[in-house]
Amino acid sequence: MDLSLHVLIDPVGMTGGDLRRSLQEVAAGGATVVQMRGKERTTRELMDRGAAVQKLCRLYGLAFVVNDRVDVALALGADGVHVGQDDMPVHAVRTLAPYLTVGLSVSSLGEVLVSRDCLPDYFGMGPVFQTASKSDAGEPVGIARLREWTQEAGALAPVVAIGGITRDNAAEVWQCGVDGIAVISAVWQADDKTGACRALRRGQPTVKRGG
Amino acid sequence: MDLSLHVLIDPVGMTGGDLRRSLQEVAAGGATVVQMRGKERTTRELMDRGAAVQKLCRLYGLAFVVNDRVDVALALGADGVHVGQDDMPVHAVRTLAPYLTVGLSVSSLGEVLVSRDCLPDYFGMGPVFQTASKSDAGEPVGIARLREWTQEAGALAPVVAIGGITRDNAAEVWQCGVDGIAVISAVWQADDKTGACRALRRGQPTVKRGG
Repeated sequence: MDLSLHVLIDPVGMTGGDLRRSLQEVAAGGATVVQMRGKERTTRELMDRGAAVQKLCRLYGLAFVVNDRVDVALALGADGVHVGQDDMPVHAVRTLAPYLTVGLSVSSLGEVLVSRDCLPDYFGMGPVFQTASKSDAGEPVGIARLREWTQEAGALAPVVAIGGITRDNAAEVWQCGVDGIAVISAVWQADDKTGACRALRRGQPTVKRGG
Repeated sequence: MDLSLHVLIDPVGMTGGDLRRSLQEVAAGGATVVQMRGKERTTRELMDRGAAVQKLCRLYGLAFVVNDRVDVALALGADGVHVGQDDMPVHAVRTLAPYLTVGLSVSSLGEVLVSRDCLPDYFGMGPVFQTASKSDAGEPVGIARLREWTQEAGALAPVVAIGGITRDNAAEVWQCGVDGIAVISAVWQADDKTGACRALRRGQPTVKRGG
């Protein structure tokens, strides 16, 4: 899975046309992963809308990841599942879904180190900056710690930075050595989603670490 | 699975000792199924407390059913999963969890008939009476319709009545021909949980329909 640019999405409430257009636009701009998140949604809503998202992701060459719900990810034939510290432990996810890519949210070096018992396929590390998109996100990690932690965590699994990343600060996030970035507002609040995605990837090193 | 008496439980917040004592008491009174419900809980809470409930159910000879979350049911090694109309469709549950007993909540004859495409192992029918335990429960079905619908639904799968059932009205619910009843308050608000369960089963016919 190309982890370069994750776009998080709550598809419930979007019309089918909006959804299709949006995914086409972000794919054109260089998004590589769509993560469906909807903690407040019913399972049926996630299943119904998720089926549409999955089909469109396949059409536009995007990987499709489901947040938290391993059952929904499996039922929809998703490419991966992303879990947080309050979700199912990675070892249990591996047992249920051995063929899915598994991402794990970490917000401290301690959480990275604990995960060594059963490593995810990538870390979602953050929030890098203050963010309004996730009310329960903790204190911002900041650029200095992101750089330090990415060095430590990157030896275990690829790191995707998340939280408050915009076109203006994306370059300094890339310079921390992360393998990808994940955004919500930076894309969804942009009129030109393709341009927003392009701008977010602009600072990405062309040669991968170790490559 | 003996469907006679389901006790619904939100185990988060109970101490380990309370949980153990409660399950021992309801088992002694004739409860047969414990269904874990916690829509507001995190997946991690359901996993952690659910593991304790599962072990105790095995110890006391109770079947263990998880509400809504097929992934949690599978990860915990539950005996079954119970889904509502807003949860995963039964056909998708069957694909993910072919060995689990699957219950489906229905609150109308229409929902019973639609389910014929992929039948559950039992129907949870209700709310029979007004209930305070589930704020989003619809209009009460009432005894007359419960009897009528149980005749129709019972030809497809066993029927478990739920919603506002107490020791005082349990006998007339049993007389509708149901295969089981499910309760929350009637057990959890009772000082004597064993006595409450015994009272709830008192009106149960000794010979099963068709037996």
